[in-house]
Amino acid sequence: MKTVSLTTDFGTGDFEIGSMCGVILNIAPETNIVDLTHEIPPQDVIDAAVVLSRHFFYFSPGSIHIVVVDPGVGTSRNPIAALIKDQFYVGPDNGIITLVYQRAIKNGWPVKIIHTNKPEFWLPNISNIFHGRDIFAAVAGHLSSGVALESLGEEIHDPVLLDFPEPVMIPGGIRGSVMRIDHFGNLESNIDQALIKDPRRTLVKCNGQEINGLVDTFGNAKDGDLVSMIDSSGQLSICTVNGSAAMSLDAKVGTKIEVIEIDSAK
Amino acid sequence: MKTVSLTTDFGTGDFEIGSMCGVILNIAPETNIVDLTHEIPPQDVIDAAVVLSRHFFYFSPGSIHIVVVDPGVGTSRNPIAALIKDQFYVGPDNGIITLVYQRAIKNGWPVKIIHTNKPEFWLPNISNIFHGRDIFAAVAGHLSSGVALESLGEEIHDPVLLDFPEPVMIPGGIRGSVMRIDHFGNLESNIDQALIKDPRRTLVKCNGQEINGLVDTFGNAKDGDLVSMIDSSGQLSICTVNGSAAMSLDAKVGTKIEVIEIDSAK
Amino acid sequence: MKTVSLTTDFGTGDFEIGSMCGVILNIAPETNIVDLTHEIPPQDVIDAAVVLSRHFFYFSPGSIHIVVVDPGVGTSRNPIAALIKDQFYVGPDNGIITLVYQRAIKNGWPVKIIHTNKPEFWLPNISNIFHGRDIFAAVAGHLSSGVALESLGEEIHDPVLLDFPEPVMIPGGIRGSVMRIDHFGNLESNIDQALIKDPRRTLVKCNGQEINGLVDTFGNAKDGDLVSMIDSSGQLSICTVNGSAAMSLDAKVGTKIEVIEIDSAK
Repeated sequence: MKTVSLTTDFGTGDFEIGSMCGVILNIAPETNIVDLTHEIPPQDVIDAAVVLSRHFFYFSPGSIHIVVVDPGVGTSRNPIAALIKDQFYVGPDNGIITLVYQRAIKNGWPVKIIHTNKPEFWLPNISNIFHGRDIFAAVAGHLSSGVALESLGEEIHDPVLLDFPEPVMIPGGIRGSVMRIDHFGNLESNIDQALIKDPRRTLVKCNGQEINGLVDTFGNAKDGDLVSMIDSSGQLSICTVNGSAAMSLDAKVGTKIEVIEIDSAK
Repeated sequence: MKTVSLTTDFGTGDFEIGSMCGVILNIAPETNIVDLTHEIPPQDVIDAAVVLSRHFFYFSPGSIHIVVVDPGVGTSRNPIAALIKDQFYVGPDNGIITLVYQRAIKNGWPVKIIHTNKPEFWLPNISNIFHGRDIFAAVAGHLSSGVALESLGEEIHDPVLLDFPEPVMIPGGIRGSVMRIDHFGNLESNIDQALIKDPRRTLVKCNGQEINGLVDTFGNAKDGDLVSMIDSSGQLSICTVNGSAAMSLDAKVGTKIEVIEIDSAK
Repeated sequence: MKTVSLTTDFGTGDFEIGSMCGVILNIAPETNIVDLTHEIPPQDVIDAAVVLSRHFFYFSPGSIHIVVVDPGVGTSRNPIAALIKDQFYVGPDNGIITLVYQRAIKNGWPVKIIHTNKPEFWLPNISNIFHGRDIFAAVAGHLSSGVALESLGEEIHDPVLLDFPEPVMIPGGIRGSVMRIDHFGNLESNIDQALIKDPRRTLVKCNGQEINGLVDTFGNAKDGDLVSMIDSSGQLSICTVNGSAAMSLDAKVGTKIEVIEIDSAK
């Protein structure tokens, strides 16, 4: 059994996702289909890229991740399928793979990207507005059924990549930024836990507020407390306990976060 | 692996759907279960019929589609199972199959409808209010596990059918109507793309507003634009880009839509 | 194929559930994963216990039910896995199993509870805040793949149990209480249908209102009617037709419900 995961901005109110499942299982009945989320904000390619990077490597080798966040559907943007490490991505060539691609390049993991331009692996009729079903689901189904990635089209070497900021060194610490705001209003940053020397002796600054030290869990804090912690992906995050840090701090994607070693701060 | 799809008006807030999955997998472990939608408006049999018609034929031969939109649960309405072309329907006999049934009759495809009245294929205890679990999920499980359709009960030849309007010819074009409003407020019509000669030279009229020509994709339009296009099911639809056409046009299911060839309109 | 069900308080807006599926399928590809509900009110262990008890025994023998409603994540509460009758529970030791455990004890069914403290059955890196993925999903995956329950850790005999009220006899009838309010506002009680002699000759009292007799289905009642019925789990429930009984009666979990035999009431 192969696994296919689905990430879209469709919401769960309608039957598009089910139609995609029908197409996949028609081609590859021995497939486990998993919903990642269908609540990506509409057409928010950046959010999709961050979400993809946060679950991609938890799946079994050979898993296929379809992402349909596709503002360019029906225009000239390419459909692609990509091997990244031991996982596959299927979706538009619009930068969604950026973070997993960069991680693979940095680590020397295998990467191969194919422009999936062979219509024999699509549905017979292609609508202008639903490539998720007519192209991506069909291509993922063929991958799941054992078709080789290389058979699906021609290799490309210049995928669209988004410009994600990297943390920078500042006096006494580092400055990163908010990468994503989850549906609770938690701020997910681009500051990896490896960059934080001593979580107890750390000052986290964001939009004029300061948080003294990181907590291990919400269990240690009270409702409404603004806390900083290492989230489940190993990144620094800022949360308001049973509230929205995004609202508390008036923070947005891109808002700066500074992490200062307390000894240096004094 | 057989596929079972689920379409209900339960919403996703509670565990009824999961219980149905438990029943299906208890009888037929080798089954892929797919959620189509659980957001059919409460007891809206017409909406369920349109949704069913729009995904039914994307699934693999032998797939089983359970629909639980069942205002008559606990009354004398029959539970049925139906073979339509190469797919199965399991649910109440209340007209939900109308559109797929009529399409099959028109095309000469196989149709067989069974009143699933043999309790040996139900759960041992039948609640008055949850036939979705106690009858439909159990029957679908048996179908998935290989029980023949004919074994489930007695054949009937007079299923309940709903009265869906057909488009009619008018001077210079055709008049159809809104069949369904999706959760974005897009108006889905009963006007098939085959009825539109030249999408560029077409005037679409609805509730006093006129739309000049069809667009291929949203990519060509601005926020708030009212546009007409062929939707992913091959039907004419009217959409407000990043808005609700139903609100823009004060349209409801049944609202008339006229499609005029522009040469004739002049 | 084994079945794993998921019950959480995560909502469906984010990708945590999908990551858990990835972990399960990585360990046990031949697994059917079923969502029970992800809409348990945040950290509401009592609600989770009631929901679990209402679907647990509909699943196939050997099914594995993960529940992640876990206010104590990251603290010293134990992760456990339990065999109860022929089903497995995987989750925190915080009382969620109470109702199914008590039913098993009462019926003399097999029960075995293991403190899943062997890290070789967890993910290599354990976050402080997402044991659902790092411990529970991994443990459930190993169970699904055939690892024996006893291998996962040490047996315990004192699981945390919650204090659920039992119905009591009163003159002319019984007094129970609201166990749960579902997302429609229906009141689910702890009064089993076996305790009601004649549904037609029964007076149901709650917060000063009286309902005369039980109905079989909603089909017999009008919008806004307050009715009492046996719900799909065989318990007495109070519902407002197309409305919220919780609001109509200002009822909460714990609100008393009295069931009086009408002959006795006179």
